[in-house]
Amino acid sequence: MGSPIYRSSTTAPVNIAVIKYWGKRDPTLNLPTNSSLSVTLSQSDLRTHTTASASPSYPSEKGDTLLLNGSPQDVTGARTQACFRELRALRATLESKDSSLPKLSTFPLRIVSENNFPTAAGLASSAAGFAALVRAIADLYELPASPTELSRIARQGSGSACRSLFGGYVGWEQGSATDGSDSVAFEVAPASHWPTMRAVILVVSAAKKDVSSTSGMQTTVATSSLFSARANETVPRRMQEMQRAIKEKDFEAFGKVTMVDSNSFHATCLDTWPPIFYLNDVSRAAIKVVEAINKRAGKIVAAYTFDAGPNAVIYYEAENEKEVAGLFKGVLGDKDGWQGERGSAVQENKEAEASAREEVGGAIELLKEGVSRVILTGVGEGPVKTEESLIDGEGNVVKA
Amino acid sequence: MGSPIYRSSTTAPVNIAVIKYWGKRDPTLNLPTNSSLSVTLSQSDLRTHTTASASPSYPSEKGDTLLLNGSPQDVTGARTQACFRELRALRATLESKDSSLPKLSTFPLRIVSENNFPTAAGLASSAAGFAALVRAIADLYELPASPTELSRIARQGSGSACRSLFGGYVGWEQGSATDGSDSVAFEVAPASHWPTMRAVILVVSAAKKDVSSTSGMQTTVATSSLFSARANETVPRRMQEMQRAIKEKDFEAFGKVTMVDSNSFHATCLDTWPPIFYLNDVSRAAIKVVEAINKRAGKIVAAYTFDAGPNAVIYYEAENEKEVAGLFKGVLGDKDGWQGERGSAVQENKEAEASAREEVGGAIELLKEGVSRVILTGVGEGPVKTEESLIDGEGNVVKA
Repeated sequence: MGSPIYRSSTTAPVNIAVIKYWGKRDPTLNLPTNSSLSVTLSQSDLRTHTTASASPSYPSEKGDTLLLNGSPQDVTGARTQACFRELRALRATLESKDSSLPKLSTFPLRIVSENNFPTAAGLASSAAGFAALVRAIADLYELPASPTELSRIARQGSGSACRSLFGGYVGWEQGSATDGSDSVAFEVAPASHWPTMRAVILVVSAAKKDVSSTSGMQTTVATSSLFSARANETVPRRMQEMQRAIKEKDFEAFGKVTMVDSNSFHATCLDTWPPIFYLNDVSRAAIKVVEAINKRAGKIVAAYTFDAGPNAVIYYEAENEKEVAGLFKGVLGDKDGWQGERGSAVQENKEAEASAREEVGGAIELLKEGVSRVILTGVGEGPVKTEESLIDGEGNVVKA
Repeated sequence: MGSPIYRSSTTAPVNIAVIKYWGKRDPTLNLPTNSSLSVTLSQSDLRTHTTASASPSYPSEKGDTLLLNGSPQDVTGARTQACFRELRALRATLESKDSSLPKLSTFPLRIVSENNFPTAAGLASSAAGFAALVRAIADLYELPASPTELSRIARQGSGSACRSLFGGYVGWEQGSATDGSDSVAFEVAPASHWPTMRAVILVVSAAKKDVSSTSGMQTTVATSSLFSARANETVPRRMQEMQRAIKEKDFEAFGKVTMVDSNSFHATCLDTWPPIFYLNDVSRAAIKVVEAINKRAGKIVAAYTFDAGPNAVIYYEAENEKEVAGLFKGVLGDKDGWQGERGSAVQENKEAEASAREEVGGAIELLKEGVSRVILTGVGEGPVKTEESLIDGEGNVVKA
């Protein structure tokens, strides 16, 4: 009989910030210069599935391994190592208190991960990736750690990953401790509080990112003369406004703060030296179309936000699906992404399209040319433990 | 014998700011929220030619008239009226002191104006226009007013016009008086101090401006949370840096401040609600190409700046003409604008083009697609009195 193979599997969600994280006060610990807030997106549409396993039979000379979408990943980077080290230390503490526990902390880790969305889409996959990695290892190690505690660890892997430990509406407190102990995620409201939040993501075909967010944000901190006003004055005020908007399910306030904060973040990128541009003409066309939708509605029913790339994420409430997603189905119905359950349910709205064409015809054409696919999703839950394992009982990768 | 026709003619230059004016603390008097600084461009390339005339024979029921490029203009707007009123008051004072003077202040004004550049190019023609208007009327009225005093009047017509009363390198002091008496232009250095400053303007084909600068800047003041940091902290510091750079003819410092200030201005536009976008993908391509030029040179030899539109103005020194204008001639040699004396003198630089293509090939292609013409120019003089009149001795418009 071989050595035991210990395994645990989880899925974890993507989150898209409505108040953006940009700038680190400590680049090693990923401690941010400002708090941020995001919506966790449904795992039916976007998720990372990760199995963590440990075994005395795994060859120690190979060390810890990680396979992502079939490709071996380098785990020697400081960020991944920080997560492994913190989780192992917590496990070792348990083992030292209960000698009957198997010494998992001493075994190599074998981790297998898969995304259910194209990595090339330029979505924030590292957040889901590190959240799943940390959650899966924590489950494997049977750590009694809360999502808040795990968020502190996941943050060291990728800042925004800390927010993917929770479902619904999630804040990340910047904290003030130099060791980062108080820089953790917290639940603003569960998905069930405001379950009608939807999002349509317009994936914009673009050459690869000019500037990675890791190096970009530090250049902003070092060179933008407007950045400190954003970090120290604007964001703290908006964090309060946004939490109130979510608690009261006030979409107009939610949408307005979401849009101005995205613009403010990209403004500080433009104010960076050399300037960083993530928005392109297609992104701006999406903004114009959202403005036309809101003008037609006479109030804010759609809200755009852009991460460090040209893709538009457009939030709306289910009751306005026809006015928002319906318009995009009219314009972009021939693109990939409408086949699923959510996409099929959207009613194409040719009337809204015609109305937007009158307002911003050029923008509609630019979207048709520049959007390569759409993703329909909505607010969702945090990480979920699953029995579906990507590693079999022999420690081998399960073939898809 | 008919009544006398009094006439005076002047030409006035365009200026392109290197520290931008954006935001008014008093929209009626055009008092700015921050000081600004510009380079006056040569009138051989870009100028407004204006003849101002007055006569007791002009029908008083028609009032004052202005013909621009052959089209009658509305002069009843508050800004034009403010200029007329101020100049007439100064003339009336002279007349009251010397009764032998003809009572020009009581006669209708007939003004004819012509630009030597396409208005459609989206260049800051209102600056040259109001500077020429004010200078021509002041000459007609034989006012003993200095350029500084006239700048206070021209400012009320169009803020940036005040800087076109001087040649060379020109500042505009924001001032603090509520009546605007100290918000005037001043000479930082004459053109002769640093005569080797050149500029190539890339005119970008674009639909008409989304948002006029007049309404845009007030929306920024009212809504941007980053704007006050720019106006109160960033610009005052840069005004000092820029004046030092000009005094020391330090192009690297001049170029760096020019570029970061343009980016900062456009960042506050993006931070406006709703956001204002003047830069498009072609503008960004110009930025990328300038970055490639500077990288190849190992220092800043070219500096971009953008006003409230997508056109790129790229400053450089004459000694680097081949590296800067030569590259653009290589890329854009088939566009309009290379025919003149300056353009013909530029040596096409295919080597620099090839090098930029390796760095930023996509940007080079975007420029070829999106630039409709180029204008080559350099630092130049302030308004110049001319005997060439656009109105004949009978008070009629001289046909071109």
